[in-house]
Amino acid sequence: MFGFLAELAAKVGHELAPEIVSKLAINKFAGATTPRPRPYSLWSDQEGKICDYVSWPSLTDRSFFGRHLRAAPESFVDGLPVDTPYESEQNHGQVTGLFKRTSPIDCPRSSLLFPFFAQWFTDSFLRTDSNDRRKNTSNHDIDLCQIYGLTEKTAGILRTKTGGKLRSQFVGSEEYPDNLFDADGEVKADYSALPYVSNEKVFEILNRFGDAEDRKKNYFASGLERGNSSVGYTAISTLFLREHNRLCEELQSRNPGWDDERLFQTARNINIVLLLKIVIEDYINHIAPIETPIFMVDTSFPEEEEWYRTNWISIEFDLLYRWHGLIPDEMTFGGQDYGPSEFMLNNSVLMEHGLGGIIDAGSRQKAGRISLHNTADFLLGAEYAAIKMGRDYRLRSFNEYRTQFGLDELDDFDDLTSDQNLEAELKGLYGDIDNLEFFVGLFAEEARDGALFGELMTTMVASDAFTQALTNPLLSTRVFNAGTFTKYGMKMIKRTSSLRDLVDRNVKNPADVKVSFAR
Amino acid sequence: MFGFLAELAAKVGHELAPEIVSKLAINKFAGATTPRPRPYSLWSDQEGKICDYVSWPSLTDRSFFGRHLRAAPESFVDGLPVDTPYESEQNHGQVTGLFKRTSPIDCPRSSLLFPFFAQWFTDSFLRTDSNDRRKNTSNHDIDLCQIYGLTEKTAGILRTKTGGKLRSQFVGSEEYPDNLFDADGEVKADYSALPYVSNEKVFEILNRFGDAEDRKKNYFASGLERGNSSVGYTAISTLFLREHNRLCEELQSRNPGWDDERLFQTARNINIVLLLKIVIEDYINHIAPIETPIFMVDTSFPEEEEWYRTNWISIEFDLLYRWHGLIPDEMTFGGQDYGPSEFMLNNSVLMEHGLGGIIDAGSRQKAGRISLHNTADFLLGAEYAAIKMGRDYRLRSFNEYRTQFGLDELDDFDDLTSDQNLEAELKGLYGDIDNLEFFVGLFAEEARDGALFGELMTTMVASDAFTQALTNPLLSTRVFNAGTFTKYGMKMIKRTSSLRDLVDRNVKNPADVKVSFAR
Repeated sequence: MFGFLAELAAKVGHELAPEIVSKLAINKFAGATTPRPRPYSLWSDQEGKICDYVSWPSLTDRSFFGRHLRAAPESFVDGLPVDTPYESEQNHGQVTGLFKRTSPIDCPRSSLLFPFFAQWFTDSFLRTDSNDRRKNTSNHDIDLCQIYGLTEKTAGILRTKTGGKLRSQFVGSEEYPDNLFDADGEVKADYSALPYVSNEKVFEILNRFGDAEDRKKNYFASGLERGNSSVGYTAISTLFLREHNRLCEELQSRNPGWDDERLFQTARNINIVLLLKIVIEDYINHIAPIETPIFMVDTSFPEEEEWYRTNWISIEFDLLYRWHGLIPDEMTFGGQDYGPSEFMLNNSVLMEHGLGGIIDAGSRQKAGRISLHNTADFLLGAEYAAIKMGRDYRLRSFNEYRTQFGLDELDDFDDLTSDQNLEAELKGLYGDIDNLEFFVGLFAEEARDGALFGELMTTMVASDAFTQALTNPLLSTRVFNAGTFTKYGMKMIKRTSSLRDLVDRNVKNPADVKVSFAR
Repeated sequence: MFGFLAELAAKVGHELAPEIVSKLAINKFAGATTPRPRPYSLWSDQEGKICDYVSWPSLTDRSFFGRHLRAAPESFVDGLPVDTPYESEQNHGQVTGLFKRTSPIDCPRSSLLFPFFAQWFTDSFLRTDSNDRRKNTSNHDIDLCQIYGLTEKTAGILRTKTGGKLRSQFVGSEEYPDNLFDADGEVKADYSALPYVSNEKVFEILNRFGDAEDRKKNYFASGLERGNSSVGYTAISTLFLREHNRLCEELQSRNPGWDDERLFQTARNINIVLLLKIVIEDYINHIAPIETPIFMVDTSFPEEEEWYRTNWISIEFDLLYRWHGLIPDEMTFGGQDYGPSEFMLNNSVLMEHGLGGIIDAGSRQKAGRISLHNTADFLLGAEYAAIKMGRDYRLRSFNEYRTQFGLDELDDFDDLTSDQNLEAELKGLYGDIDNLEFFVGLFAEEARDGALFGELMTTMVASDAFTQALTNPLLSTRVFNAGTFTKYGMKMIKRTSSLRDLVDRNVKNPADVKVSFAR
């Protein structure tokens, strides 16, 4: 799979035009698996039992996660063959132990800005319902719900209703999302109807830190319930909020007759496409295991392809994106170290160092490597839950997923990794490579040839990303034009291909700010 | 457009294989307009004003009707140029008068079974929300919600929960849907959670007849609130309910290990595909303006086509299907005449004559012609409402829709009709053919060359039908197989291409029952 990419990349600009290379590479990944509609989903019968047969809800009810492969046979226990010891709680704990970080392993290529963006980006569509983990509460679209919310009603609450803008606050010349709480620590009346405000769980976690009242002072009103989860997340939201409000001003000066609604809708349309450009041309190009960036947003061909289908986020996409290894035990901003309890749910770090300061520091620090044995302790519970989901929902084995995505099955654990300790450890737990669980295999597979992770994860990330980003209705040939975005909007879209471009327009002294997913 | 069809039909079987002819004809109609995603919808801003610009909700929120063409400019009043007199209430009444039946005009081809089926069929997806007419309460899919409801919750209420079956009652050997009310005229406890039961409006209409208590005795529990609206509707629902329960028995005997859920889901999967087969191979072939049936369900090619897109019912489709002219002033069953107050909301007619009796009588009577000046008085209010919707939502003119669907603009009213009185009447109201409203034009355009209605209506019906029936997920190449339907189910699907086939399996003494959309 990756040899193909390297060959293509070598031809860019002389043998093949960049657009052709991009199209060929996108189609290679997007076509790696069968297109939607998929026959199965996490829809379950009335007793909650996962169904391994096709039903009308499995074909149509997008409140449930989709799935790429039919559930494993029921004769498996917890999704694994009954002849193996993996169904036990003890085994579940042992497998979780595979993820535990003993000493930190650095990512060979990525800066901390990469997980900042990845976490923020995926929170908009990998939205496991905490009350029912079979369900996904997203719209299945890249819709910038982090700043606009999941519905027009939420957007309405977050809007100023003048000039198309989103509510915000200024601290000096720095613009941030508005505070959710008033000076007395109560949710402001304007925000009382935000959907997550009635959910006490969301704020419960604040109390764990012992200084909830302090943290509430800078807790932002946001589109999603996890909108304040970490300094990196809040920084990216702030950047897109600034761009939205900047776009509104530019649109208003060029279209003085437009009302608030049209300014809002048009700025949002542009902003979503800017995000799509950054996702494909900056983020995915960084992930791709090649040195030359080759992927680009090209609206000319996707509608002709069989993978151009309405989005439906799959459970496999949800699980594979648990890149906890990226998160270091500590982060450094302005020369000061911050542990998890300080960089999580604590916007005072952002306010102190400013948006430029956080992005710059993030771009200069190493992320951790995405692999086994590299998850910080505070995230091991999440690994345990992910393994449980894979078993509860009877996901097929690692090798079966390789086949589904056009890759050869592996014959042995030494095909998976050159780390002999890990090989022995996996062999001890699974016996045969064909028993290896999907989730564990994804993270066990060695990153080769400059990739950030193994071949299956790279293929699946790219496949799911292209078939759910390039299908965005704003990129349809009948929508992607100046009638939708205005001439100014089209110019902004053309001029944006990286997070750098957004920083240049929205952060003070941008020349002093490093912006890079690569370290 | 229709010359093309006649040429194709003449080649079936010698020059071209039937599958090729079907594919060419389907693609001709399905490709007559631009494919989805459509830029605009009936989504409106927060003041309820129709928006003529692209917004995220206009691209994604399917709770609103879609629209094929952008709203007409605001300088029009009520959707029409301010220089014409058509914005007035007086004009609205005059235009409604165009529909009034003076003396009944017969349909040249269709039996009454045709409107029975058409009304029943379209009630599942042309579901204008009575509280907000911009909205469509359907799932936008052909999902047999008439008998299964719009959600799994409703389906659960209508199911027996044993053997996969739907609740029903037997009157002698004749199976019907179960009664909604108990002997005391109260909604049975089992049905109290049906979504429409809490809506008093639904039952209010019963009281208009003066014998509500009698009618309640045979009022059926159904999937939709209009499930008892007329004897024809209830007959078709009864037929599909019988087929569902019959399929369950056949599936159970072949798969003794299956639980209720799997039997239900599999029978529904088969039943929906049987409906799709009947829609394309019986109903659409009847509508098509050619003598030889050429359209068939063929799952081999739709996924390769650009029109293969997730469904989104448009307001134009909703309006064009108001085929009130089909409904005669009286219907005859068993030699007895019934007026609207008797054939509406009155299942005793069905119980008295039996399912076979109603279908036979329907097949032997003439339907009315779909045209202006042929709407029965009791339906004129519906025409008034339809004209109002076209104006409120600023639909484009008849000629603009012709262009959008690949047809030439008409130059004059005499291109529209050879009826000189009608021509004069329309000229008096509209002046110029370019001012002619979409809705009125559809019904004014003369049916030529054996068509049931004018060229634009035929083209739009076929285009919207093919692009929303053949996109059903059950017809996907990865779903349409014995794994989904069982071998028995595949055999039933293969053996069903007309309503006749369903009658043969579910009505007693079928040889005595005429079943035909043609008279």
